[in-house]
Amino acid sequence: MSHPEEAIYQAQGMGHSSGMGAAPAVVFVDFVVGFADPAHFGGGNIGPAIEHSQALLAHARAKGWPVAHTRVVYAGDGSDAGVFTLKAPSLLKLTETSPLSRIVPELTPVAGELVVRKRGASAFFDTQLSGFLRMRRVDTLIVAGCTTSGCVRATVVDSLQHDFRTIVAVDCVGDRAIGPHEANLFDMRQKYADLMTNAALFSLPG
Amino acid sequence: MSHPEEAIYQAQGMGHSSGMGAAPAVVFVDFVVGFADPAHFGGGNIGPAIEHSQALLAHARAKGWPVAHTRVVYAGDGSDAGVFTLKAPSLLKLTETSPLSRIVPELTPVAGELVVRKRGASAFFDTQLSGFLRMRRVDTLIVAGCTTSGCVRATVVDSLQHDFRTIVAVDCVGDRAIGPHEANLFDMRQKYADLMTNAALFSLPG
Amino acid sequence: MSHPEEAIYQAQGMGHSSGMGAAPAVVFVDFVVGFADPAHFGGGNIGPAIEHSQALLAHARAKGWPVAHTRVVYAGDGSDAGVFTLKAPSLLKLTETSPLSRIVPELTPVAGELVVRKRGASAFFDTQLSGFLRMRRVDTLIVAGCTTSGCVRATVVDSLQHDFRTIVAVDCVGDRAIGPHEANLFDMRQKYADLMTNAALFSLPG
Amino acid sequence: MSHPEEAIYQAQGMGHSSGMGAAPAVVFVDFVVGFADPAHFGGGNIGPAIEHSQALLAHARAKGWPVAHTRVVYAGDGSDAGVFTLKAPSLLKLTETSPLSRIVPELTPVAGELVVRKRGASAFFDTQLSGFLRMRRVDTLIVAGCTTSGCVRATVVDSLQHDFRTIVAVDCVGDRAIGPHEANLFDMRQKYADLMTNAALFSLPG
Repeated sequence: MSHPEEAIYQAQGMGHSSGMGAAPAVVFVDFVVGFADPAHFGGGNIGPAIEHSQALLAHARAKGWPVAHTRVVYAGDGSDAGVFTLKAPSLLKLTETSPLSRIVPELTPVAGELVVRKRGASAFFDTQLSGFLRMRRVDTLIVAGCTTSGCVRATVVDSLQHDFRTIVAVDCVGDRAIGPHEANLFDMRQKYADLMTNAALFSLPG
Repeated sequence: MSHPEEAIYQAQGMGHSSGMGAAPAVVFVDFVVGFADPAHFGGGNIGPAIEHSQALLAHARAKGWPVAHTRVVYAGDGSDAGVFTLKAPSLLKLTETSPLSRIVPELTPVAGELVVRKRGASAFFDTQLSGFLRMRRVDTLIVAGCTTSGCVRATVVDSLQHDFRTIVAVDCVGDRAIGPHEANLFDMRQKYADLMTNAALFSLPG
Repeated sequence: MSHPEEAIYQAQGMGHSSGMGAAPAVVFVDFVVGFADPAHFGGGNIGPAIEHSQALLAHARAKGWPVAHTRVVYAGDGSDAGVFTLKAPSLLKLTETSPLSRIVPELTPVAGELVVRKRGASAFFDTQLSGFLRMRRVDTLIVAGCTTSGCVRATVVDSLQHDFRTIVAVDCVGDRAIGPHEANLFDMRQKYADLMTNAALFSLPG
Repeated sequence: MSHPEEAIYQAQGMGHSSGMGAAPAVVFVDFVVGFADPAHFGGGNIGPAIEHSQALLAHARAKGWPVAHTRVVYAGDGSDAGVFTLKAPSLLKLTETSPLSRIVPELTPVAGELVVRKRGASAFFDTQLSGFLRMRRVDTLIVAGCTTSGCVRATVVDSLQHDFRTIVAVDCVGDRAIGPHEANLFDMRQKYADLMTNAALFSLPG
């Protein structure tokens, strides 16, 4: 992953690794039916990201890592419509009971995994994710999901701001558009997170 | 600003305008000495962004719009070092008394303008910015500052999440690297904010 | 409402009025079936508070004030159990589908009123309440609900911290125990909120 | 500490212990010169609380527990005045350079201890406290400081909401007025925190 402007970041002291801490968890951001479907919010490399996320989810469960999933959910009566739904009114169809806002079947949560309803971009914003992770003394958050340039990026920035060492599971994030996907991976690696493949995540000791 | 992948966003119902509300304010993000200097965190088009921001600041003052400025400030004894400073250890030199963490002289705050100390990326994270804006019944936040791909982007996402209609002052945001600058303008316009030139901002009625 | 220690607060410059702003809203905190029932979390003067809240709700609707309601909701599988449920394990019975976590019939929300799921004490903590109020440019929050010494107090403190002028609707707050009810009204009046009766609220101009 | 209404709480499943976790920290809330002085915000049992806090601080340092201190700090030019300073305008004299906003000499912070500037009631609100504690994997927060019915109570509620097991260091919290001090200890014990004496804290294993 070379990049013409990487040298600037290196010269200014950025792009270091924040590393793995002692206790990781995984969050799967917005892998719901509507984001798996190119006719709604899907497309690009989101399909492969879901496929690779199955292995990551299985690994997390085997290791006993805490797991959280997010869904975008709006009230349907306009009561919680906000500026995000001015920019993207199509989000309003993601209501509690819409099939589009269900977690994709391949990644169906099991009991004890947190399922977060959110209406912002970040999985942390106005949600109980931070408390869930603190109860389990998590210090490292592995982020999978979609879209890389949207809710994944927002979650990664908030994860860093909440002082979690943050890992982008590169095989497990996807976007409807590949240009923004790549551009955001670059930004996140320089400033907010380490990038790790499934192979690297699965070979971690402990 | 055409973009090969814009059609995907349009087809999925994104990229709408969130518009101006009734009461705007402006935040100048991290226009401090260290970010104006290519030997530290500056470079690229940050210089011109500061130059254009002088006109925006003068306009805001003339209009009576609330104004806030942010500085990155770390404690110097490591007590508030966090994951951000693992990724970018050079940030730790931005201490309360370092000349590098002073607002650039061209944009020196006046009494009544909020000056926020922050240690995260977003101007909202762990700061009093949201309360400052609520006291003044602001509903629209115009964001200037640097870097476009860093603290500006993080501030814009949080501004939307806090349900401010959000405007990126395109002439007044800059980045050390132009690729990420452009890529983040694209993301923000599709999902989080409207983009406006100084000329457009100055010709708003009211 | 005289109090032996009130003079101390007065001498130290506390107990001033924060007043009404330009745009009020009302939040009804945790008026759910389980808190109306002394066999679960109810008792004391919660019954009369619900009765008086019907008039306040009718008034708010007539005036067009934004209205929000809160429910305590836990996941049922332990995934979002936290320290609050260590202190009060009985809260865990308030699940999404439990009759105990339904808003009481007298105060049934109508379309457009926000219904907040919460698991903390404050109606603001990890919820979309703040954004809902900002979208409507609210600057003053009237708080009704139960319990005065619990979630009402926590909501009032957070309302002030979010820089809303805050009003406790004294006829419309109740507690399972009268001593804490009175003690918390005293604290809130000295430091965080103004106290207003329904009669006073209904006679506001505008 | 018997209380006529305690039976109600017990019957409803409250008042349990949340216990000590694996990694405690201590926060000293607002032990600044102005709150030690009855001519400003002090009085009551704040003096003894400061005295007992010296032993707690020494113990925490000996054990290597993370330590944080808070100061109330306002900007002085009105830019960050808010609803709290409408209720208590006298708070505005607590500026960055005022002797009144300095930590009391008996509890002077050492390098590596976090010193938080705050303008709200809670030590968590708009501050970096939560991130400081996460970096150190703290799961239990011991709260000392003043006033019991004000910033200590607000900090304790937020600590629970952030999912820290929370301990009120009863010897080390004080209030200008004893009635509210006692009433708030009762509330906190029933719903938010365990209460421990210095003797009990000092005899913890590990």
